[in-house]
Amino acid sequence: MKLRFGRKVISVDEARAALYECVTTTEKEMVSLPRSFGRLLATDIYADHAVPHFRRSGVDGYAVRSQDIAAATPDNPIVLDVIERIPSGTVPERTVQAGMAARIMTGAPVPDGADTVVMLEMTDCLCLQDESLLSLDAQDTKVKIKKNVQAASNITPIAGEVNCGELVIPQGTRIGPGEAAILATFGFSVVKVFRRPRVAIFSTGSELLQVEQELQPGKIRNSNSYMLAAQVEANGGEAFIMPALSDDPHQVEAALGAVLPDVDLILTSGGVSVGDYDVLVDVFGRFDGKILFNKVAMRPGTPTSAALWKSKLLLALSGNPGASFVGFELFAKPIIRKMLGSHRPEAEELSAFLDIAYDKPSAYPRYIRGTTRVEAGCLWVRPAGIDKSSIMVSIKDADCLIWLPAGGQGYLRGDSVKVYTTR
Amino acid sequence: MKLRFGRKVISVDEARAALYECVTTTEKEMVSLPRSFGRLLATDIYADHAVPHFRRSGVDGYAVRSQDIAAATPDNPIVLDVIERIPSGTVPERTVQAGMAARIMTGAPVPDGADTVVMLEMTDCLCLQDESLLSLDAQDTKVKIKKNVQAASNITPIAGEVNCGELVIPQGTRIGPGEAAILATFGFSVVKVFRRPRVAIFSTGSELLQVEQELQPGKIRNSNSYMLAAQVEANGGEAFIMPALSDDPHQVEAALGAVLPDVDLILTSGGVSVGDYDVLVDVFGRFDGKILFNKVAMRPGTPTSAALWKSKLLLALSGNPGASFVGFELFAKPIIRKMLGSHRPEAEELSAFLDIAYDKPSAYPRYIRGTTRVEAGCLWVRPAGIDKSSIMVSIKDADCLIWLPAGGQGYLRGDSVKVYTTR
Repeated sequence: MKLRFGRKVISVDEARAALYECVTTTEKEMVSLPRSFGRLLATDIYADHAVPHFRRSGVDGYAVRSQDIAAATPDNPIVLDVIERIPSGTVPERTVQAGMAARIMTGAPVPDGADTVVMLEMTDCLCLQDESLLSLDAQDTKVKIKKNVQAASNITPIAGEVNCGELVIPQGTRIGPGEAAILATFGFSVVKVFRRPRVAIFSTGSELLQVEQELQPGKIRNSNSYMLAAQVEANGGEAFIMPALSDDPHQVEAALGAVLPDVDLILTSGGVSVGDYDVLVDVFGRFDGKILFNKVAMRPGTPTSAALWKSKLLLALSGNPGASFVGFELFAKPIIRKMLGSHRPEAEELSAFLDIAYDKPSAYPRYIRGTTRVEAGCLWVRPAGIDKSSIMVSIKDADCLIWLPAGGQGYLRGDSVKVYTTR
Repeated sequence: MKLRFGRKVISVDEARAALYECVTTTEKEMVSLPRSFGRLLATDIYADHAVPHFRRSGVDGYAVRSQDIAAATPDNPIVLDVIERIPSGTVPERTVQAGMAARIMTGAPVPDGADTVVMLEMTDCLCLQDESLLSLDAQDTKVKIKKNVQAASNITPIAGEVNCGELVIPQGTRIGPGEAAILATFGFSVVKVFRRPRVAIFSTGSELLQVEQELQPGKIRNSNSYMLAAQVEANGGEAFIMPALSDDPHQVEAALGAVLPDVDLILTSGGVSVGDYDVLVDVFGRFDGKILFNKVAMRPGTPTSAALWKSKLLLALSGNPGASFVGFELFAKPIIRKMLGSHRPEAEELSAFLDIAYDKPSAYPRYIRGTTRVEAGCLWVRPAGIDKSSIMVSIKDADCLIWLPAGGQGYLRGDSVKVYTTR
């Protein structure tokens, strides 16, 4: 059966739901912490100890009893006996009692008895007169406290950051700098992540030259495959750019089938429309997989198609560069992110103000490549350069897709629109 | 000379200017196009041919003369002779003259004589009655055009996207999907990029355990080095996590000096404050490099210091996790990006509305880790979790720094503030 015309159209959400039913996460693997940056956690991270696990001083200064220094002023400093010096990484040996202070460094444990820490700058001690006493062996014997400091000041209590047993990072979270710090804190020198999904990328079209080839009349170099590969990698997948497909459906089926066992997803661009040489249509018309959909209520990319073949997803994107880009963002991105365990696989939806009027009506919802800017706290968006699905050069200017519903009668500058981030 | 107190304070902008004077780009290197994704271009990319380099059909249909079909309607179709079939990638052989049409595929060159393309859906031809005629050998002889289509419709003119000789991507641009498509189009199978800056990361503090070590009383695992490494990598650098530094200035100087020849930048965290064990202060007090600054008018991270040593930059960040994070974003990020040739090395500045009141006054400008959200087209920001420089766990929730000027008397919800993106 040829499926050029008379296809059943479904919505973007229905198409995504059909895809999601076929997606499972990739297997888990262990990588070293520095190799895990940018990956998605494949396990919940619970705190196996409180942070901090001791009362931590937030400053360099003196640990004291707040009641002892309640009357302290620069003119009437309180003098306390310095009983101990507590560098970071050590454990206090003595309890601070009435009239006592312990010299303490940032990050060191506050000794028992003390309930506040006075910053060094609010104290006077011998060391200010004689810098040699700053050396490790020096022992202050007295300190003048020049300011009243309230109880609990400059101390982070035990579990002030994290309780023991608390969920600190849920599975599916991307490991950024903050997550890296937490993983290190809890001793994760190796980290469990989902394997990067392997994505084979095929382009169709006998007009396509390889990047290395000289330009020829009527032909263009294959750019979609590289664009899609960059999109795959930006979303955490591993891209494999495959040789261009021929016009012969038998050869195409063989080429797709050959790579199928080794990848998690096949992306094709082109060959899904109504043209005479749209070979993917012929492949879908004869192969033994299950067609999930072959027409989506969207522009560009209406003929976007998908199939499940030997338990692998095959996503056939429209061949126009703009349609390929949009099709990736709407369908391939969430597939890859779901394989990686993401709980928010789809692009973030934001509201923005339209920066210029837009009056192209559409029978289907439209996804327009857009460029955002923030001005005076407001998010404005306009179509990125020339917005036609055949246009490649303006894709670089897009940081989002502007969504306009079907049948719109046109939009004015300042109208509120939905946008989906693509970066 | 010990420089614990009495340091000269300079502004963040002055500090950056001092750093920028010492920064040069890394050397250029060639990488394959697929390996270039995410890197920054080290050369301007000019178009060596127009895009498209032929009049390109945007649809599957028939190339015709618009004057021939001016009267066409569904009820009164115009019948034209089909003289040729032009698949993508081929070159038309005949000129379309009065009464003629050429069947054409998306992406194929429009033949001379034709000035518009009618979509297949607006035509009737034999192939609709007999699908076997869709095969490659079939030749239509007549086509019915059912709709008037204006001149120039569905045709991208020569150079409609890019003029020959045009600058299409300037040096310093990050290679994303759109740039990848352009590079492929112009035949760049290998791409010139700046080598990733190598950044050695040291932490100081005898309280630090390695990630692999069991927790001990009074000690914590080293998390700053991994946080900074993730920040380095996110900004295009190559991070080398070095063993923790001791408290001995001679050993520290030796350790820093040993790695100096092999890296482009040394980052340290900790040891720059007024504490008794702030070893970087001692190193700076004795070494033969040039101190660029040792106090910056900012919170957190006032004691942030920098030096030029044997023509390499040494950036000494405050040891508190929050201060390290902020110090990286303000100083290390633009250094790395400048080494990579970026023209916009500093974090993007946006305006946003403050989501909650904030009344901590500060003698210095404050950089508060913040979390943004967009609501009804407006950008709102609030401090990310607990905002104290000693707090590590809330770093993961930050996507920006909120900037508040010095001496503020407090801010109300809805006040406009500047934010700097950190993602």
